[in-house]
Amino acid sequence: MKESELTDFFIDGLKDIYWAEKHLAKALKKMEKAATSDKLKEAFSGHQIETEEQISRLEEVFNLMDRTARGKKCAAMAGLIEEAEELIEETEKGSMVRDVALIAAAQKIEHYEIATYGTLATLASILGSEKIKNILGEILEEEKAADNKLTELATSNVNEAAMQE
Amino acid sequence: MKESELTDFFIDGLKDIYWAEKHLAKALKKMEKAATSDKLKEAFSGHQIETEEQISRLEEVFNLMDRTARGKKCAAMAGLIEEAEELIEETEKGSMVRDVALIAAAQKIEHYEIATYGTLATLASILGSEKIKNILGEILEEEKAADNKLTELATSNVNEAAMQE
Repeated sequence: MKESELTDFFIDGLKDIYWAEKHLAKALKKMEKAATSDKLKEAFSGHQIETEEQISRLEEVFNLMDRTARGKKCAAMAGLIEEAEELIEETEKGSMVRDVALIAAAQKIEHYEIATYGTLATLASILGSEKIKNILGEILEEEKAADNKLTELATSNVNEAAMQE
Repeated sequence: MKESELTDFFIDGLKDIYWAEKHLAKALKKMEKAATSDKLKEAFSGHQIETEEQISRLEEVFNLMDRTARGKKCAAMAGLIEEAEELIEETEKGSMVRDVALIAAAQKIEHYEIATYGTLATLASILGSEKIKNILGEILEEEKAADNKLTELATSNVNEAAMQE
């Protein structure tokens, strides 16, 4: 890839999502601990492991670009994590409503990632690296799958929460 | 709808997206002004008008819930708008790279809204209001359409930007 304004924008995006994933990995541990249902705990725990693997693959992308893997604070992800933490504070431990809230927060996070990896994969393709495009495309599919899993959990959890009332 | 913890969570979500849409309407004006290509300017201008209409429909939802329409600061949307503003500062006026950056920022915003309206529509259905569910479902479809339009623009804009280098 040649150096250019577009490449710089791509690298900035990489740094942003690298920061975001690292902070998300920590947040997912808190979300797992805070969740009520075992299914949701498992979903967060599984996605936490997946996120660690994605961080390694992002490091591979930095490497392929001959750059040092470095994060740059992502204001949006900081806001999304802040929102998730607020929801934990505002809801009671052991309640189904807490799970509904955690799923809602997690789906916002997944959609942030879906948008980001979609843009980065398009950029990688235009910049001429099929290899990088494929890595980012794989992560994109994982994020979509994580979002779909949360949608399934949401429907069953919201129903249970409504029945508890 | 009966008063409950789930209803409170729904109302909080409404306040959050109401705040988000109001701030987005202002941000879209700045994004339109900052955009390079006419097509992107039109897309932002069209979505700005659509956003104003969505704000009115959210007010209708508050009304149907017997609540006063009131926003609550949404940290995530604040972060997303901050990111868009940073990108405007960091890119040159008139450059195609600025458009690539604006589209990327706008798609993150659309995905935030897609996740939010998805959750709210599910909650409205469980809470027993088909009318509210339909209003929120309509807005959800508009946000998805806006995102798809941006994906189309992204592909053509990124190609043009790459060719300029």
